[in-house]
Amino acid sequence: MAQPQSDSDRRKQISVRGIAGIDDVNEIKKTFNRHLHYTLVKDRNVATSRDYYFALAHTVKDHLVSRWIRTQQYYYEKDPKRVYYLSLEFYMGRSLQNTMINLGIQTSVDEALYQLGLNIEELEELEEDAGLGNGGLGRLAACFLDSMATLGMAAYGYGIRYEYGIFTQKIVNGEQHEIPDDWLRYGNPWEKARPEYMLPVNFYGNVIDSAEGRKWVNTQVVFALPYDNPIPGYNNNVVNTLRLWSAKSPVDFDLKFFNDGDYIQAVLDRNLAENISRVLYPNDNFFEGKELRLKQEYFMVAATLQDIIRRFKATKFGTLEPTRTTFDLFPDKVAIQLNDTHPSLAIPELMRLLIDVEGLPWEKAWDITVRTCAYTNHTVLPEALERWTVSMLESILPRHLEIIYHINFLHLENVQKKWPGDLDRMKRMSLVEEDGEKRINMANLSIVGSHAVNGVARIHSEIIKADLFKDFYELTPEKFQNKTNGITPRRWILLCNPGLSDLICDKIGEDWIIHMDQLTELKKWSKDPNFQRAIMKVKQENKLRLSQYLEEKYGVKINPASLFDVQVKRIHEYKRQLLNILHIITMYNKIKKDPTAKFTPRTVLIGGKAAPGYYIAKRIIKLVNMVGNVVNNDPIVGDKLKVIFLENYRVTLAEKNHPCDRSKRANLDSRHRSVRYR
Amino acid sequence: MAQPQSDSDRRKQISVRGIAGIDDVNEIKKTFNRHLHYTLVKDRNVATSRDYYFALAHTVKDHLVSRWIRTQQYYYEKDPKRVYYLSLEFYMGRSLQNTMINLGIQTSVDEALYQLGLNIEELEELEEDAGLGNGGLGRLAACFLDSMATLGMAAYGYGIRYEYGIFTQKIVNGEQHEIPDDWLRYGNPWEKARPEYMLPVNFYGNVIDSAEGRKWVNTQVVFALPYDNPIPGYNNNVVNTLRLWSAKSPVDFDLKFFNDGDYIQAVLDRNLAENISRVLYPNDNFFEGKELRLKQEYFMVAATLQDIIRRFKATKFGTLEPTRTTFDLFPDKVAIQLNDTHPSLAIPELMRLLIDVEGLPWEKAWDITVRTCAYTNHTVLPEALERWTVSMLESILPRHLEIIYHINFLHLENVQKKWPGDLDRMKRMSLVEEDGEKRINMANLSIVGSHAVNGVARIHSEIIKADLFKDFYELTPEKFQNKTNGITPRRWILLCNPGLSDLICDKIGEDWIIHMDQLTELKKWSKDPNFQRAIMKVKQENKLRLSQYLEEKYGVKINPASLFDVQVKRIHEYKRQLLNILHIITMYNKIKKDPTAKFTPRTVLIGGKAAPGYYIAKRIIKLVNMVGNVVNNDPIVGDKLKVIFLENYRVTLAEKNHPCDRSKRANLDSRHRSVRYR
Repeated sequence: MAQPQSDSDRRKQISVRGIAGIDDVNEIKKTFNRHLHYTLVKDRNVATSRDYYFALAHTVKDHLVSRWIRTQQYYYEKDPKRVYYLSLEFYMGRSLQNTMINLGIQTSVDEALYQLGLNIEELEELEEDAGLGNGGLGRLAACFLDSMATLGMAAYGYGIRYEYGIFTQKIVNGEQHEIPDDWLRYGNPWEKARPEYMLPVNFYGNVIDSAEGRKWVNTQVVFALPYDNPIPGYNNNVVNTLRLWSAKSPVDFDLKFFNDGDYIQAVLDRNLAENISRVLYPNDNFFEGKELRLKQEYFMVAATLQDIIRRFKATKFGTLEPTRTTFDLFPDKVAIQLNDTHPSLAIPELMRLLIDVEGLPWEKAWDITVRTCAYTNHTVLPEALERWTVSMLESILPRHLEIIYHINFLHLENVQKKWPGDLDRMKRMSLVEEDGEKRINMANLSIVGSHAVNGVARIHSEIIKADLFKDFYELTPEKFQNKTNGITPRRWILLCNPGLSDLICDKIGEDWIIHMDQLTELKKWSKDPNFQRAIMKVKQENKLRLSQYLEEKYGVKINPASLFDVQVKRIHEYKRQLLNILHIITMYNKIKKDPTAKFTPRTVLIGGKAAPGYYIAKRIIKLVNMVGNVVNNDPIVGDKLKVIFLENYRVTLAEKNHPCDRSKRANLDSRHRSVRYR
Repeated sequence: MAQPQSDSDRRKQISVRGIAGIDDVNEIKKTFNRHLHYTLVKDRNVATSRDYYFALAHTVKDHLVSRWIRTQQYYYEKDPKRVYYLSLEFYMGRSLQNTMINLGIQTSVDEALYQLGLNIEELEELEEDAGLGNGGLGRLAACFLDSMATLGMAAYGYGIRYEYGIFTQKIVNGEQHEIPDDWLRYGNPWEKARPEYMLPVNFYGNVIDSAEGRKWVNTQVVFALPYDNPIPGYNNNVVNTLRLWSAKSPVDFDLKFFNDGDYIQAVLDRNLAENISRVLYPNDNFFEGKELRLKQEYFMVAATLQDIIRRFKATKFGTLEPTRTTFDLFPDKVAIQLNDTHPSLAIPELMRLLIDVEGLPWEKAWDITVRTCAYTNHTVLPEALERWTVSMLESILPRHLEIIYHINFLHLENVQKKWPGDLDRMKRMSLVEEDGEKRINMANLSIVGSHAVNGVARIHSEIIKADLFKDFYELTPEKFQNKTNGITPRRWILLCNPGLSDLICDKIGEDWIIHMDQLTELKKWSKDPNFQRAIMKVKQENKLRLSQYLEEKYGVKINPASLFDVQVKRIHEYKRQLLNILHIITMYNKIKKDPTAKFTPRTVLIGGKAAPGYYIAKRIIKLVNMVGNVVNNDPIVGDKLKVIFLENYRVTLAEKNHPCDRSKRANLDSRHRSVRYR
């Protein structure tokens, strides 16, 4: 079997990355040295690998800056329609290599680091994943940002800068332990704090009548401090912005307490307000209903909408109008996409701003809101749907609850008009659920307050119409759409599978990197044995590399020629990792029963995190590891079957596995899910 | 009266700052623009004043970097004796102008900013004070760092990077309100985090016997993350380091709790451990005895001593010895100066490290410790002396308590030897106080564990010998010294009084900036009427500028020709602000009684913060303001007498007042203090 080339050798030959220019390389070396010296305050005698990583990251980031400024300036001048992608999760992973690839400087940087005697792969491994997501929902947000920048859309991601992202999973005696993900420990070279755009967010208080209508008063204020993260498009000089909010105590936080009581305690208590952006909730497809989570959702939405309206109002470059004075154009200039119901408070919050702050009448405000907002549904699992208790909303967001009630009143009037006397239907379609503790159904709110609703796979979007949201589909069929989840080919082919990328480019050029449908051109060579062999060779090299990694990490000898059967995703009953384990046990029993029978050697890789409070999911992890222990150490099984639980599955580990996958299991899951739901 | 020139005009003509070179100015402009663009990610269209300040700070800091690296490299190679100044407070104030002056680049930077159309004074005002001190003790530490760097000593400051420094004082209706000092909000351009030198600090636990002796086990660990701050010497290319520790939860903090219980709560609770470096205790000359403060003191000491020993052991550059293997040279290579008793746990901690970790016998360890440590006493006020309860030490630092007991046992043996049977004296000299709750007297511990003890004024050092530490003086008279507090003339003359500096330089050149005793050369001109006039003119200009500032801020019209009577310092009964107020009232009554009588017009300025829990001190502030209200608004008084309470007195405000002071009141205070104590 062929030895795979080293990563650096492989990378250097890849055509899509172009040739390193001497000037570029020298400039990069100069900038790198400058950052090592001035930014890291180190010289060669004392610099650590991490210092080199940071010098490299700053060097690469420098290449973004002019493009970033120019892109934003351009949007400001041209005033295009802006897309705002609101999400409680952006599962970004690492930025270094992605940035180099999208900027087309990877070859030059590779060469510069090589000339400086540094191992770029080693430095890349020092970057912390931005693990601000749980699974598919968060990664979708990240892939969309890359794609929108590549398409040159004036797009913005808005979310929370969690101080702790998704926990690091450690497997001890086969069991999951959660380690807090202190990803900002060494600093984040990619982000830029923007204190000049800090905004207040209100909580609690009460609502009163005033001359100008209803007013939300006596609130507690927390400030939202934005951190901007660059999102480079592929090869197009566009750099969009992902703006993540961090909670800051106001300067006068608990000032009263200060002067009454314990000064030290009052200063320490400032952290309580700042807890809002402290940690990502580690649940995937599960609604926990915690107050801190509700605060997170409103915190992000409230800060974001203020920012959106500020930008909408802002003077256009070169015009004389000081600001926009009406909101008539709002839906033509602003699109707000809600990634699941997590940011769905945007609907009542936008209504509140338009009515209470901007003084618009309800009907006008509602028309603007519906035409601006769109909602992506991610799941039909009942336990995942957000249903906030009325009592909690009443305490934290009393004005929003009022607005939701009024939205519901008008909505139910419409239902009543279309289906007079159909009380069952009204009950099903109400935003307010009255069985047991009173709750607001955030999915129903999102549908009513949006002009578009989509599922994320064809079958999923069909289920929504036929089942989960059937009543709503019958009321407003025009709202319902499908947008099947895609992934960005920049990270998921070009970055993590350079061998395959190169092969494809040899045949059909580089257009597919931007226009993925171009890949159908490859059909011409689908029967070409040379091409088939080349593809298989790349895959075999990828598998060999992964085998070596696994052997090193888990001490299990892997047969690189075996079939790699990979299931990586959150551990969840509905995702049916159990079924997979039963299959392994069945294969094991078969081999044991007749060790001489023909058997296609198979390496089963299962990876994923369990929510810390999800007992059964954690038992499933234990089971995978225990089954692995038995299978992997049975001399009769030999290299026919191996089972490995991949510790701490995350974006960066996906980049390693993915080039070896037999298939994406996503579709399989969708089938499971639909079966389970029916 | 002559209009004073604008600050920039004044600054440009000053000879000691040299002439701006064209190349320097162009280079500075280039670097400034680069930082605005790449570090702040802004262009001229959107940059704020704060962006310009940060670009400027980074530009100036860049000039430090090579000198900083080279200085540290030089120390590493030459291996001189190092001075470690341990202090819970470093009251640094601002760094920008001080850095420019010490580096000799102020004129060039002034010119560069002028050419860029920016107002440098306005930008300087955006720098937050590093308010990591309460008053004189903290400012002494800061002045010493400047002076040691200027003398080219291999000196290090070690302290805590408080996230909140001394509170901002707001006066509302004449009363003090405390606003938390969120000085790191916008980032600190001067510091560099050094995660590669992070160190563990232990708390709690218990002590057991082991084969290698006593062992401190089952501790709770908090990490100390160092941030390095550059300390440039004046005009000598030396840049020393102030290393401030920040508390970080260990990655596996409360790991157990994680997996048993509430994941989210466990992540939030990490802040509890990090509370150690959260806030400076706002007490001046007062011992509160809080557990968190004890943790701060030990945290700083434990991290610092590990760092000192690491540096002591480190291979010398260019030699073949891997590390130092004995501690024989320790007192010749290391001096540890304790700024008051706050860092006095350094004594038992050094003993613990030498005995428990390095395996030295007690006698050897004790000899090294005493020859290494020296103690500065700052006060004779009984309520200010640190006396930690044995119960608190037993819980948090059980091994240290053991060591302190053994130090005391051997110490009392000596006392007994010298004064057999003098039980009263033994009781007075014991480190353990037994009246009421058992406590450790940290001053006694510091004297016993040091080879040198000093007061900070001649009279103070005499009181110590004659009174406070009389018994100890009789036991070891050779330890007792005086070191009268000095201030650095770089900040307190050159920076804040450029007019006066220039005058002095005209007469005696620039040597006095480094060697202050050169100022006696001025005696030659003491009777010269031209020189006297010139001095008075500078002072008059300073007073006029301060008058304008006061008028703007307080809305009180000031007579710039009046006598400026300034008392600025912490508000404290022993500092006798009350006496000052009584004097004001007396003068007021005199004027009212006979408005036509001759009276030297006087402007009384009183400023200072009161500890938030110090009721009487806060009443004194109120009284100053109320008296001011009466006096300042009495038409009969007119401009003969004005009283202003200076809000939020701090290093930066001192720089404004100081050039107008009639006298430093420090000496007066010492007299008060001694009188009070007797």
